[in-house]
Amino acid sequence: MQAAKESSPDDIAHAIIAMERAALERWGRGDPSGFLEISADDVVYFDPFQSRRLNGIAELRELYQSIRGQVQVARFELIDPRVQVIGDAAVLTFNYVAEDTNEAASRWNCTEVYRRDAGTWRIIQTHWSFTQPSLASTASSA
Amino acid sequence: MQAAKESSPDDIAHAIIAMERAALERWGRGDPSGFLEISADDVVYFDPFQSRRLNGIAELRELYQSIRGQVQVARFELIDPRVQVIGDAAVLTFNYVAEDTNEAASRWNCTEVYRRDAGTWRIIQTHWSFTQPSLASTASSA
Repeated sequence: MQAAKESSPDDIAHAIIAMERAALERWGRGDPSGFLEISADDVVYFDPFQSRRLNGIAELRELYQSIRGQVQVARFELIDPRVQVIGDAAVLTFNYVAEDTNEAASRWNCTEVYRRDAGTWRIIQTHWSFTQPSLASTASSA
Repeated sequence: MQAAKESSPDDIAHAIIAMERAALERWGRGDPSGFLEISADDVVYFDPFQSRRLNGIAELRELYQSIRGQVQVARFELIDPRVQVIGDAAVLTFNYVAEDTNEAASRWNCTEVYRRDAGTWRIIQTHWSFTQPSLASTASSA
C-alpha cells in the first residue's frame, strides 16, 4: 500500500493515522480483518479482557475470529493522535471515544507501534486499555 | 549509561530489561525518579488513573512528584518480558504483578518504547493498564 518510502515524519504520521482510521472503520462494522491485515506475524497485543499479553498473529487471529460481527460502533473519535517516528518505527498514541448504536460511550487509551517492513507499515504492538476504568465501574454500579 | 552501541538484539533486550527493572526497584520504594531520569523530553504516558494521555516530561514529572513516597512494593515480577528491536527503537512489553506490604497483589499490562538518543536509551512512550480490570472490580466488590 505504501509504494515509496514516505519522506518526512509528517508524511509518515499522516499515513499511519490513515491506516489506523481505516482499520477502525472496519472494526466498528464488526470486521476485525482490517487490523489483522496490517498486523505483522510477530505482533504482541494487550486489551482489558485478556489474562496476559497475546503473542503473535495466530493468537490475535483466534481472538478476533471469536468476536467477528459482534462490535458495532455508531461513531468514534481519535483524540489528539500523535506519531513518534524513529527510523522504520512509528509509535501512534491517542485517546479514543466510541459510541455504540445505543449512544453508550466507551473511553480508551491506545498505543500502536508500527514497523516498516520492506516499505510497508505493519503493527507489531497493540495496547488498548480503558481510560479511568475505576470511574467507569463506579458509574455503572451507581 | 550505555557507552557503546549494543551489537545484537539480544544485548539490547538485556540492557532494556535491566533498565526497566532498576527503575521499578526504585519505584517500589516510593522513588519515581528512576523513571524520570530515563524518560525523554517528548515522552507520552498512559496509566489507568489519568483522564487523557500525558504529553512530555513536565506533565509526567508533575504526576510523579504528586505520588512521591506513596508507592511501596514488597515484591514484583515481570512476566515474559519481550523486546522488539527496530534500529534505534526498542519496544518492551510484559505482564507485571506487584504485591504491596499487605500482600495485596495488583496485575498490570505494560508497554514501554525506548529510543536510542546519541547512544543512550530513553523511554518515549509508557502505557500501564490493569489486567482484566472488570474482574478485579468484581472481586473487590464481592
